[in-house]
Amino acid sequence: MRISELARESGTPLATVKFYLREGLLQPGERTSATQAIYDDRHLRRLRLIRVLVDFAGLSLAQVKVVITALSEDNVLAAAALAHRNLAPQVEESVETDRATAALQRHGWFVDPTSPSVRQLAAVLHAAESLGLPMPPELFDVYAEAAHQVATAEVSGIVTGNVEQAVNEVVIGTVLFEPVWGALRRCAQADVSRRLWEELEDG
Amino acid sequence: MRISELARESGTPLATVKFYLREGLLQPGERTSATQAIYDDRHLRRLRLIRVLVDFAGLSLAQVKVVITALSEDNVLAAAALAHRNLAPQVEESVETDRATAALQRHGWFVDPTSPSVRQLAAVLHAAESLGLPMPPELFDVYAEAAHQVATAEVSGIVTGNVEQAVNEVVIGTVLFEPVWGALRRCAQADVSRRLWEELEDG
Repeated sequence: MRISELARESGTPLATVKFYLREGLLQPGERTSATQAIYDDRHLRRLRLIRVLVDFAGLSLAQVKVVITALSEDNVLAAAALAHRNLAPQVEESVETDRATAALQRHGWFVDPTSPSVRQLAAVLHAAESLGLPMPPELFDVYAEAAHQVATAEVSGIVTGNVEQAVNEVVIGTVLFEPVWGALRRCAQADVSRRLWEELEDG
Repeated sequence: MRISELARESGTPLATVKFYLREGLLQPGERTSATQAIYDDRHLRRLRLIRVLVDFAGLSLAQVKVVITALSEDNVLAAAALAHRNLAPQVEESVETDRATAALQRHGWFVDPTSPSVRQLAAVLHAAESLGLPMPPELFDVYAEAAHQVATAEVSGIVTGNVEQAVNEVVIGTVLFEPVWGALRRCAQADVSRRLWEELEDG
């Protein structure tokens, strides 16, 4: 299809499609003349992916580029590492990670204190403290155990099957399942609150 | 202290402090003359809160306003409901929530199908499907159980103690502990991947 059809078919404004092409987010079409190129289903899928990453996962275009680069890795763990390193919110290098590292090691985890995720964790815990509302250690432990259960299910699920599928799953899963968690946690809080409320009314 | 000191003390540019005052995010100081007002520790705490909400939780100013409104509720469950309803990413009303609702009911949860969290959940699950990478039902179940454990610990922790503290905890917790989860999940994935990798090397 021609670029105008690609835009129409994907529901993306033509100017945006051209912008993604210039930025290298959308792979070039196959040239048919000096001024024309044709596009196919792979371009449609890529546009759909960009839209989901921007709309649902709230990624910046720079982060979308990281995801797209990771998707072309031919090693699952390398792709996962790329996604993990670059999709965590960027936190100042100077944040003190000793206590966050110690808390994770207490759970027996391998920890890389220089990883952006550890820095993000340390920064958020510190922010909660600075508001006078530190996360209680027992709650941290519940979070850590829950996160480990989820990670085990996620990572174990991807080591089987073919590499392209696995890379897709791990990269998209890293990005897309975080809002799933946020939504589920809020639904669960509503459920638990309502139960407590009913118990109070009954008692 | 005067407004210039408040700005310096909090590390916030003076123009930003004035903007927060105009927008009603920062409570007015106590007027000492027609052109001057004095500020105290409560203003400093509020500025710190705004900064954490914007920097760590990535909230918009409209969402910060919701948090601040919720913090002045004198009923914990009302504050929590306000936070839950307004802090979920806004998703089109038209999204089909039947399957998400059914999946949650299968876990025995009370579900309000009109809640923004249910809509967000439905929208993200649908987005993953549209990319050809639906979330496997077994993984959804692991997420749901983990979310329920976390919510139980969180909600049970706040029904004791005084109301102001509880409102603070539930509102800030809703906002701030979502990035804690994101960071912990990525740390846990790194731990699980490394274990699997070592097993593969050893095997």
